Amino acid sequence: MNVVRKYTAEFLGTFLLVLIGTSAVVIANGKVLTIALAFGLAITISAYAFGGISGGHFNPAVTTAMLINKRMSGKDAVGYIIAQIFGGIVASAFVALFVNALGQPVSNLGQTDFTVIDPWMAIVVEALMTFLFVLIILNVTSADHGNGQFAGLVIGVSLALFIIVALNLTGASLNPARSIGPALFAQGNSLGDLWVYILAPEVGAVLAAFASRFMGSEQK
Amino acid sequence: MNVVRKYTAEFLGTFLLVLIGTSAVVIANGKVLTIALAFGLAITISAYAFGGISGGHFNPAVTTAMLINKRMSGKDAVGYIIAQIFGGIVASAFVALFVNALGQPVSNLGQTDFTVIDPWMAIVVEALMTFLFVLIILNVTSADHGNGQFAGLVIGVSLALFIIVALNLTGASLNPARSIGPALFAQGNSLGDLWVYILAPEVGAVLAAFASRFMGSEQK
Amino acid sequence: MNVVRKYTAEFLGTFLLVLIGTSAVVIANGKVLTIALAFGLAITISAYAFGGISGGHFNPAVTTAMLINKRMSGKDAVGYIIAQIFGGIVASAFVALFVNALGQPVSNLGQTDFTVIDPWMAIVVEALMTFLFVLIILNVTSADHGNGQFAGLVIGVSLALFIIVALNLTGASLNPARSIGPALFAQGNSLGDLWVYILAPEVGAVLAAFASRFMGSEQK
Amino acid sequence: MNVVRKYTAEFLGTFLLVLIGTSAVVIANGKVLTIALAFGLAITISAYAFGGISGGHFNPAVTTAMLINKRMSGKDAVGYIIAQIFGGIVASAFVALFVNALGQPVSNLGQTDFTVIDPWMAIVVEALMTFLFVLIILNVTSADHGNGQFAGLVIGVSLALFIIVALNLTGASLNPARSIGPALFAQGNSLGDLWVYILAPEVGAVLAAFASRFMGSEQK
Repeated sequence: MNVVRKYTAEFLGTFLLVLIGTSAVVIANGKVLTIALAFGLAITISAYAFGGISGGHFNPAVTTAMLINKRMSGKDAVGYIIAQIFGGIVASAFVALFVNALGQPVSNLGQTDFTVIDPWMAIVVEALMTFLFVLIILNVTSADHGNGQFAGLVIGVSLALFIIVALNLTGASLNPARSIGPALFAQGNSLGDLWVYILAPEVGAVLAAFASRFMGSEQK
Repeated sequence: MNVVRKYTAEFLGTFLLVLIGTSAVVIANGKVLTIALAFGLAITISAYAFGGISGGHFNPAVTTAMLINKRMSGKDAVGYIIAQIFGGIVASAFVALFVNALGQPVSNLGQTDFTVIDPWMAIVVEALMTFLFVLIILNVTSADHGNGQFAGLVIGVSLALFIIVALNLTGASLNPARSIGPALFAQGNSLGDLWVYILAPEVGAVLAAFASRFMGSEQK
Repeated sequence: MNVVRKYTAEFLGTFLLVLIGTSAVVIANGKVLTIALAFGLAITISAYAFGGISGGHFNPAVTTAMLINKRMSGKDAVGYIIAQIFGGIVASAFVALFVNALGQPVSNLGQTDFTVIDPWMAIVVEALMTFLFVLIILNVTSADHGNGQFAGLVIGVSLALFIIVALNLTGASLNPARSIGPALFAQGNSLGDLWVYILAPEVGAVLAAFASRFMGSEQK
Repeated sequence: MNVVRKYTAEFLGTFLLVLIGTSAVVIANGKVLTIALAFGLAITISAYAFGGISGGHFNPAVTTAMLINKRMSGKDAVGYIIAQIFGGIVASAFVALFVNALGQPVSNLGQTDFTVIDPWMAIVVEALMTFLFVLIILNVTSADHGNGQFAGLVIGVSLALFIIVALNLTGASLNPARSIGPALFAQGNSLGDLWVYILAPEVGAVLAAFASRFMGSEQK
C-alpha cells in the first residue's frame, strides 16, 4: 500500500508539473516569467503536497541522481520513473483536450524542441542546466547542510530560473518526463528530437550526483 | 463569541479573496500572472491572518471536503459557507462601487463565465482543478505529513497556478463563493451559468476528500 | 542609544519603502505587478532587516494602531512617526535627484493623487484598504495567533495586493509617510490633496485597532 | 579539502548569479521585473544550496564587509574574491556561447554601463544601493537579530528590489564580480567604465560594515 502511495505521489506531482507548465505556454499564452514561474512553482507545490509521501522527485533525472547516491532503492527508482512518465502523458492528454476545446491547434502543446541551435548545443544546454538543477536539489535536501522546509521552495524557484535562461534555446526541459508527454501528442520535431531531452538531462544528473559527493552533500 | 470570531474570519478571508482577485481583473486590467497572483496570494495572506482563528477555508468546496473527512462539525460547516458567500457578495458590492466611480461598465466585475467551451467541458475543468486544489490543501494541512507554517503559502501559490491553467477556459473559479458575489451584480451569462460554478467545485471537493484518505493524509 | 537605533530602523525602513516603491513607478516605468511588488516587498525586506530592532512599522498609521492597542509607548510613537516621515522625505530627495539625472520631469515622483474619483471616494478607498492592511498586520503579529517568522512576508504581500486593488483609484498609499515625501517635491495636486492621505489611513488604522480586539488578536 | 569546498561554493554561486541574471537580460529579453527577479532569486537559490558550505557571499563587496566586521579571515577573503570573479567570467563565457548560437550579437551580454547619467552620479547610485544591500545582509545574518532560514530569501528579494531602482541608471550591478565577467567579453564602454563598478560597491560595503556596528548587528 505504501508503495502504491509513493508511486501515486510521483504520478500526481509530474502530472501537475506538465499540466500547469505546458498550459502556461499554450492555454495562457504566457510570457517568459509566467512560464518559468508556472513550471517552477508547480514543482514547489507538488514537493510540499506530495514530497512527504515520495520524497518529491517528479523527474527521472532527479530519481537517477538519488539512486546513484544511494538515497533510494533500484526497485523504487523504476517505479518512480514509470509513474513520472505516465503522469506527464496523462497531463498532456488533458492539455490536448483543453486546447482542442478552445479551437487552438493540437500541434502546439508546449512540447520541447530546438530550431535555431544545433543538437550538440542543445545537449550542452540541457545537460548543463540539469547538472546545476540536480546539484542544487542534492544540496538543499542534504542531510549535512540541507534547508529542511525551505527545500521545496528553493527547488521550484531554481527550475523557474533555469527556464528563464534556456527557454529560447531548447524550451528548457531538464526533465525527460516533461518532454515525453507533450511530444507523444504534438508529434513533429519534438518527437524526432526527443532523444536529446532524455539523454542530456540524464547525463547532467549523473554528473551532479558525483559533484554532490565532492561538495560533501552526501554525508550523514 | 468564539463562533462569531470564526465566522467573521471566514467572512473577511473570502471578502479579501474576491475584492483583491476580481479587482485585479477589472480595476487593474491585470495580465494572467497578475490576476493569478492576486487571487492566490489573497488566500495566502488571509490564511496567515485569519487561519489561526477559523482554519482558513474561504471556499465552500474546501469546507465540504473538511466536513466529509471529519475535520469540522456540520454546524460549523453551515456557518462557514454562509459567511463565505456573504463575504464574496460584500466584496463585489465594493468592486461595483469602485468600478462605477472610475466610469467603467458595472457589467464587468471579474465574474466567471465560459464563452468558447461548452458546459460539459466547463464542468470537467472546474471539477478537475478543484479536485487537485482541494487535494493539495488536504495534504499540506495533513496531521500525518503536512507542512505547518508553509501551508498557507503553498495553498495560495497552488490557486495561482490553477488560475494560469484555467483562466481562459472558465475564468478559473474553483470556489462557489468567488463566483456568486460577482454574478449577482454583473448578471448576464455569469448568473445563468452560475450552477456550473457551484456544482463542479463541490464535485471536485468530494472526490478530493476520498483521494486524500487513499493518500494517507487523514491519518492522525 | 537603544532609542536612537529604533528610530534609525524606522527611518531606514520607510526610506527603503519610498525609495524602492516610487522608483518602480517613475524610474523603472513599472507595470501594476512590478509597482505592487516593489512597495510590498520593500516592507518585507525592511521588516526582516530592521524589524528585530524597532518592530518594523514604517508607517504612521501602523504606529497609531500599535499605540492604541498598547503595544508601544506614546513617547516611542512620536519618535517613530517623525523618523518615518523624515525617511520618506529623504527617499523622495534621492528619487528627485535620479529622475533629474535621467532628464525626466521632477513633477513625476510617484506621488499619490486621485484624478478620476472624488475626494469622498478617495477617503473611502484609502481608509478601507488601510483598515484591512493594519488588521492583517495586527493579526499576523498577534501574541495569540501570530505567524512568527512569516509575518514580514505576509505583511509585504498584503501591501502588494492592496496596491493592485487601489493603484488606479488613489495611487494606493495606505501610509501618510509614503505620501508626504513625494508630495513635498512633486508639489501640484499631490500637495493640495495630501490631507486625504494623512486623514484616511489614520481613520482606517483606528478602526483596525478596535477590530483586532474583537478578533481576539490582542490577547496575550 | 574544506577550503576547496568553500571556494567551489563561492564559484558556483557567483556563476549562477551571472549566468541567470545576464541571460534574463539578453537571451530571455526580460522586462524589469523578470531581470530583477532573475538576479535576486539566483542569489536566493545559491544562498540555500551553497550558503551552508561557504556562508554564501557571491560578491566581493559582501566579502569585504564580512572581513571588516571580523566575520571571516583575511586568507579566506582573498580566496572567496578570486573564486567569485572566476565564477562570473566562466558564466559570461557560457552566455557568450549561447548568444552566439542564437545568432545574436556578442557585444550584448548583459554588461553594466551608464549612458545617460555621468560617472559621479553612477558612483553615487552604485555606492548607495550597495550600502543598503550590504547593510540588509549584515542585519539578516546578524547573530543578535538575524532571521535564520529566511535570510537567503530576504537577501535575494532585496537585490531584486535594488535592481528595479537602479537598472535604468547604471545597470544595477552592486557587485564587482557581476560586472567584470560580462565586461571582459562584451568589451566597449563596459570595460572602460569597469572601475566604477569595482570602486563604488566596495565603498558602499565599507560604509555598510560600520553602519551595521552602529545598528548593533555585530553583537554576539
